Amino acid sequence: MSDFDIAIVLYPGMTALDAIGPYEVLRMMPGARIRFVAHEAGPVITDSGVLAIGATHTFAEVPRPRIILVPGGPAATAASADDKLLAWLIAAHRTSTWTTSVCTGALVLAGAGLLDGEPATTHWSAQQALGLLGAKPQREERVVRTGKIVTAAGVSAGIDLALWLAGEMFGREQAEAIQLNIEYDPRPPFDAGHVSKASGAVKRKALADMVRSAPEMRASETFVSSLTGAQKTLWRSAIRRMRR
Amino acid sequence: MSDFDIAIVLYPGMTALDAIGPYEVLRMMPGARIRFVAHEAGPVITDSGVLAIGATHTFAEVPRPRIILVPGGPAATAASADDKLLAWLIAAHRTSTWTTSVCTGALVLAGAGLLDGEPATTHWSAQQALGLLGAKPQREERVVRTGKIVTAAGVSAGIDLALWLAGEMFGREQAEAIQLNIEYDPRPPFDAGHVSKASGAVKRKALADMVRSAPEMRASETFVSSLTGAQKTLWRSAIRRMRR
Repeated sequence: MSDFDIAIVLYPGMTALDAIGPYEVLRMMPGARIRFVAHEAGPVITDSGVLAIGATHTFAEVPRPRIILVPGGPAATAASADDKLLAWLIAAHRTSTWTTSVCTGALVLAGAGLLDGEPATTHWSAQQALGLLGAKPQREERVVRTGKIVTAAGVSAGIDLALWLAGEMFGREQAEAIQLNIEYDPRPPFDAGHVSKASGAVKRKALADMVRSAPEMRASETFVSSLTGAQKTLWRSAIRRMRR
Repeated sequence: MSDFDIAIVLYPGMTALDAIGPYEVLRMMPGARIRFVAHEAGPVITDSGVLAIGATHTFAEVPRPRIILVPGGPAATAASADDKLLAWLIAAHRTSTWTTSVCTGALVLAGAGLLDGEPATTHWSAQQALGLLGAKPQREERVVRTGKIVTAAGVSAGIDLALWLAGEMFGREQAEAIQLNIEYDPRPPFDAGHVSKASGAVKRKALADMVRSAPEMRASETFVSSLTGAQKTLWRSAIRRMRR
């Protein structure tokens, strides 16, 4: 297989691990060229308000990726109404081999009309929203495939999705080599990772924490919408925001 | 507990997931102030050469973090000989509550002399190197605690380390809420994540992939060592490098 583009979508207020988990897997595929795509190249501030990830390309510069990956986060609802992002996603999906999402990234696929009547999954807290947007939520599944669309459950599930995809595209041995490289032999010290396993108190705390831990979401949206070109201003502003 | 600093060390050629996995857990601790520390604030290019993560603070600006986390990566050996980084680490460790590493980040702790004669773990491919640096490698363990030092195995093991730490510092219910928020209910599609489970062919492929997938490591070290102040130049250069 010759070299091919993998477009990982970035937007302000996204959750970093949704993208970085799969990235560490996908980048090890032979021939993979990772492109972090956004409205502009430059730093994109994630939901915590203290972590910036660099977009390397604009949407327009990566029109035909073989793989598309859309991460989630508290700002996924805003992203799912971002006309320019959606227009790119719809066009890129026409020629992609795989179109994927992690966590509430599924809401963005749904916003683009790609999940109408299709089985899909998302973060446990957004399953209802996913249904309202026209998909058929699969609450018990960690990774759901429908045709060339693959959706993963919340945040860390993107690692499982990416390993599955590596196996589909390059076979079991390659996928296992990647799994070994990231030493993905998980041993969680607790067992509350699925909503069916968590107590009522843990669920309530998780929802409260979710709100508390994304204080900068709206602020970073404002920041990014005000960008006007010069990389200098862009990065200086990013640093200023993050140092508070 | 009042607000407290968590210093996550960044350096060129590090592996992103080593830092971003634990970050998504640690940042949800009540009162946590995440600081991404490096020689200079600004983008730090990771081992793939296509992903930049933003350092928010210099080492000098975060002298007494409660938690220190040192990620690994192909450039960990260079980091373990970085005098300025080591001087900061040794001083910060004197007052830290927890000093932690992920993957070959343990080599950096060892380089600072913090692991002399102590049990510790690291990426499977670096266990021997860890022993040569004076630690007692624990090849079967995913997370190893010795006093206030906690080391994790390769890359994805940082998530397990951080959840364990959340439980130690804030109790089981808080740790479970974080686990639920990142929906960490892993279901790897394969079972080759520990070196004892992988075939010889998978091990050989993994080692070859490791070399192949860090092509920009030396280049990005050169890049970062040439930095001279202006954020504009810094970020523009980062983008230029990443767009190749």
